[in-house]
Amino acid sequence: MPLFHRVTILGPGLLGASLCMAVKERMIAEKVRVWARKQSALELCKQEKWCDETEPNIKDAVKDTELVIICTPVNTIEETLSEIIQESTENTIITDVGSVKEKICRIAHAESQSYNSIFIGSHPMAGSEKSGMQYARSDLFDHRTCMITPFPDDPAEKVSILESFWVQLGMNVQQKSPKEHDKIVASVSHLPHLIASTLAEYLSHRPEDWLEMSGQGLKDTSRIAGGDPLLWREIMKSNRFFLLDALDSWLGSVNDFKKNLTEERWEELENYLAKAKKCQTKI
Amino acid sequence: MPLFHRVTILGPGLLGASLCMAVKERMIAEKVRVWARKQSALELCKQEKWCDETEPNIKDAVKDTELVIICTPVNTIEETLSEIIQESTENTIITDVGSVKEKICRIAHAESQSYNSIFIGSHPMAGSEKSGMQYARSDLFDHRTCMITPFPDDPAEKVSILESFWVQLGMNVQQKSPKEHDKIVASVSHLPHLIASTLAEYLSHRPEDWLEMSGQGLKDTSRIAGGDPLLWREIMKSNRFFLLDALDSWLGSVNDFKKNLTEERWEELENYLAKAKKCQTKI
Repeated sequence: MPLFHRVTILGPGLLGASLCMAVKERMIAEKVRVWARKQSALELCKQEKWCDETEPNIKDAVKDTELVIICTPVNTIEETLSEIIQESTENTIITDVGSVKEKICRIAHAESQSYNSIFIGSHPMAGSEKSGMQYARSDLFDHRTCMITPFPDDPAEKVSILESFWVQLGMNVQQKSPKEHDKIVASVSHLPHLIASTLAEYLSHRPEDWLEMSGQGLKDTSRIAGGDPLLWREIMKSNRFFLLDALDSWLGSVNDFKKNLTEERWEELENYLAKAKKCQTKI
Repeated sequence: MPLFHRVTILGPGLLGASLCMAVKERMIAEKVRVWARKQSALELCKQEKWCDETEPNIKDAVKDTELVIICTPVNTIEETLSEIIQESTENTIITDVGSVKEKICRIAHAESQSYNSIFIGSHPMAGSEKSGMQYARSDLFDHRTCMITPFPDDPAEKVSILESFWVQLGMNVQQKSPKEHDKIVASVSHLPHLIASTLAEYLSHRPEDWLEMSGQGLKDTSRIAGGDPLLWREIMKSNRFFLLDALDSWLGSVNDFKKNLTEERWEELENYLAKAKKCQTKI
């Protein structure tokens, strides 16, 4: 038996549409309902096998559904949540797929206590430097990590249903508090993006033909700098305190490297590289 | 007709053995001769189809051959060169595959004038974080860039034969002076390695389970930190002046980013990310 009768996806972009596909393919819900702000996006969805129902009114979209997943752009999650939270009941779990969790979870938690609705944050760590429905793939979530960020007083049964949902999508689920989540992703996701971007920005000031003399190493190291600038601006803005902490600590590591290089401490430099290699093999 | 009657590979590691394979597969030489310092490595080569002849004596190995490629570890290239340069004649092109060119080319150029031998540096930008003959692949060089670093007074005919050799291996060949080469690779190869290593070193100080919450982005950004520490220590040591220059300029870019983040200049930060993205698409 499917886990849900109906799942509702708000925002059929890369993540939203991929979720629809994966939910249908793995038969996690009998019905997949889609809401989009633009009528044109809804028209496209109607033609897809992974979409059973479309609903142009967001308040109606969240009725009679057991799971609502907010997949709108990261800077509109709060606004989307505020449009639906009063309409939702304790029979519906609301979640999102945003990369930063502390603020949205705090707001949702406060509001849900007034309205008797249930919000539990999710962060499926799947994506791509591409965005848009046309890049959606049903296997986007396979073997990836999903963090869920409940508060201690969230109903355990609902937390466990949400966890099952992501597990059934093929994900490795980890529970963290919203704050811990933000601290961790600052280091393992946002800092790498920042670093890749600084490398690419540095190279943008060098002669263009230098890039022809690069190999796979530079391609890999810089790849994520190809992500959407507006999306990443919003992510970094939302998580700026933890990101600045991570940036400062990492600059300490850069400084240690530089010291070894400047002072020609070759053995220390080799040890540093060996430590880095050892950690890299675990990534 | 093959470009050469005989090609000699000194040091059948990842690059050396891959060269042997590719030379045979593409019929660039009638005979492939291999020299290795260890007898056990030569015994292994004897069993391979890509090896026509083995020669345990390095001075004999470079006789009656039109191309000698030094593929020994980066910190032994100078030593290997000094063992063979007096034995070599003007009928033989000696080259190497090292990642840093200025010093070796300067030494070789000075010596070759005394001994009437010909050395022209090469840097095929192909490789892997793996090393050793067992990882060798005949397609390692396909569509990769190879820099060759002649001096202006090197015989044009020999430069052109060496260029043809790498082109026949499927590579995109670029000519630069040894000094320009080192300056460019400091930015497009050695700095990315340094950066990936600082990220991995930073993460080695964080709780180990954080890595379970990372995605493909961190994998890609850190991948090259998995390279051999001793090899990279030697590369960075040989190119420390240009690498320090590149490091300092890049730290300027990091500082610009940090300033935007600290002072909450979101529009500038988005522009920065957009500039980085634009450059990244050309990599």
